[in-house]
Amino acid sequence: MQAIVIEQTDDGPVLSMGEIAAPALEPGSLRLRVAATAVNRADLLQARGFYPPPPGASETLGLECAGEVVEVGDGVSGWTSGDRAMALLAGGGYAQEVVVDAGSVMRVPDGMEFDQAAALPEVYLTVFLNVFQLGQFPAAGAALVHGGGSGIGTAAIQLLKAAGGRIVVTAGSAQKCARCLDLGADVAVNYNEGDFVEACKQATDGQGVDVVLDSIGGPYLAQNLTALATGGRLVVIGLMGGAKAEINLGLLLARRLQVIGSTLRARPLAQKAAIVAGFLERFGVGLAAGEIAPVVDRVLPLAAAGEAHRVVQASEHFGKVVLRVS
Amino acid sequence: MQAIVIEQTDDGPVLSMGEIAAPALEPGSLRLRVAATAVNRADLLQARGFYPPPPGASETLGLECAGEVVEVGDGVSGWTSGDRAMALLAGGGYAQEVVVDAGSVMRVPDGMEFDQAAALPEVYLTVFLNVFQLGQFPAAGAALVHGGGSGIGTAAIQLLKAAGGRIVVTAGSAQKCARCLDLGADVAVNYNEGDFVEACKQATDGQGVDVVLDSIGGPYLAQNLTALATGGRLVVIGLMGGAKAEINLGLLLARRLQVIGSTLRARPLAQKAAIVAGFLERFGVGLAAGEIAPVVDRVLPLAAAGEAHRVVQASEHFGKVVLRVS
Repeated sequence: MQAIVIEQTDDGPVLSMGEIAAPALEPGSLRLRVAATAVNRADLLQARGFYPPPPGASETLGLECAGEVVEVGDGVSGWTSGDRAMALLAGGGYAQEVVVDAGSVMRVPDGMEFDQAAALPEVYLTVFLNVFQLGQFPAAGAALVHGGGSGIGTAAIQLLKAAGGRIVVTAGSAQKCARCLDLGADVAVNYNEGDFVEACKQATDGQGVDVVLDSIGGPYLAQNLTALATGGRLVVIGLMGGAKAEINLGLLLARRLQVIGSTLRARPLAQKAAIVAGFLERFGVGLAAGEIAPVVDRVLPLAAAGEAHRVVQASEHFGKVVLRVS
Repeated sequence: MQAIVIEQTDDGPVLSMGEIAAPALEPGSLRLRVAATAVNRADLLQARGFYPPPPGASETLGLECAGEVVEVGDGVSGWTSGDRAMALLAGGGYAQEVVVDAGSVMRVPDGMEFDQAAALPEVYLTVFLNVFQLGQFPAAGAALVHGGGSGIGTAAIQLLKAAGGRIVVTAGSAQKCARCLDLGADVAVNYNEGDFVEACKQATDGQGVDVVLDSIGGPYLAQNLTALATGGRLVVIGLMGGAKAEINLGLLLARRLQVIGSTLRARPLAQKAAIVAGFLERFGVGLAAGEIAPVVDRVLPLAAAGEAHRVVQASEHFGKVVLRVS
């Protein structure tokens, strides 16, 4: 089958269409014909040789997809060939077919195109896991999310608003801030100009936010902790700014704070299935009603994966960059 | 009423018996005649002017006590004058009487003396909160607890064994290590000689422990994180070694670790009541059966509080140092 293959060059990785073996169907799994996949920042790391796939996962890029079920593995119930599905993948989405554990697959809501559904699993499940499950986002709580214009950021705005929360985001331009506010963020701080800690305090009568969702890492650690309310949770899901920082454990104790490191990809399948089930239980109605729907920045053909990566690397996008496969 | 008062001198704090006003009874509270209280390391900090009481709490030392109910506040049911009680306090235990929210009070099990009951609330509830509630200690899990010979350490050994867990402790001498093993610890590492990270790996087939309970802070941070299994929780409840350290967030992400800062004293009364209720639900049977009972190192008269602090400061004790009040 056709898939994106990577050649490492002195100028960095070059992504192009190539031929790879189709994956074998396994018990408990579904085979999907991929209609579309979407770009995640982790793909950019993987293309450069970082963030290798977990053991047993496809070496091909792509952490999510949408498409049609074409084969149903032993022991799987509730799915039939022809069903429209969207899936969380440990890899392999930049290809014509994937095989994925049935617990990682959701139905595509009526009225949602594959192009949009392909952009949902990775970021919405990441936000659900980290803000709602690990972060225990409380009723009428407040959150700070860095990169409000990213796939994660736009998903977080939707889910937090659906949950009745207040949300402060950061973004890198006035235009992105304006779009975050349009999408439902209560406060948007241009991180080149404003002070997000102060914005969090102002948005919460000085209390601080309940949850911070952070992809920056070390450089923001101290500020993120300061932005939290007593008992708050900082969930770190990315290290775009670096991994190391000094931490003041005295602040953690005095204010009963938690720092949680989290990734989704390497979790056991049973955990992923529980995350999917929890997401559908909490947000399935909003999803079916079309209230929860990914913000798609643009749709490019799979063959243009390199250009798609360049767009994401340069942060030119707002929401998700989708790759159409068929 | 009589209580311990503190005079700050050039040679440090001097503790002596003095006279203070008895606290006023409040709705929802009980007045206890204190039979005994016990020393916690936080008392030593408070005596030196650190770790001030939370707003509204007594300025007098003492985070726990046991004694007889002598007055029942409005709105309190289930308690009568003459009942034998042990209580978690935000302060005030080094005195003849305390007034305490009924949610922070437990019955003294039949057959347990006040001297022993006075040593229970602070350390057993601290371990329950941090290892079982925040740390989510799993069935058949493994934990590392620093200072196995301390009040916290001895309580942790008992509760973890009652829960069917494996427990690795550190202690400062061969004698203390031997006593920890006698009490039920699976592995005891003399921290002056051995490598506790290696001991944790060996005790868990290389996986690492599910929970670390730490009172050292900064100097142990990196090792504590290394000792954890994937998905493990480090709960920091003390900073005897210092507050600041470098943290590698990359390790937190890659292994999905959590760093939780926690204190018990400043929590709202409703949270304390929930911790007490959770503790009794989980360990009430073992408590009633005498399986869960504090290790008392020695009992001194309240007037010898200064000597009791010296003993704890020098880590001469194993278990708890109790002060008899009446």
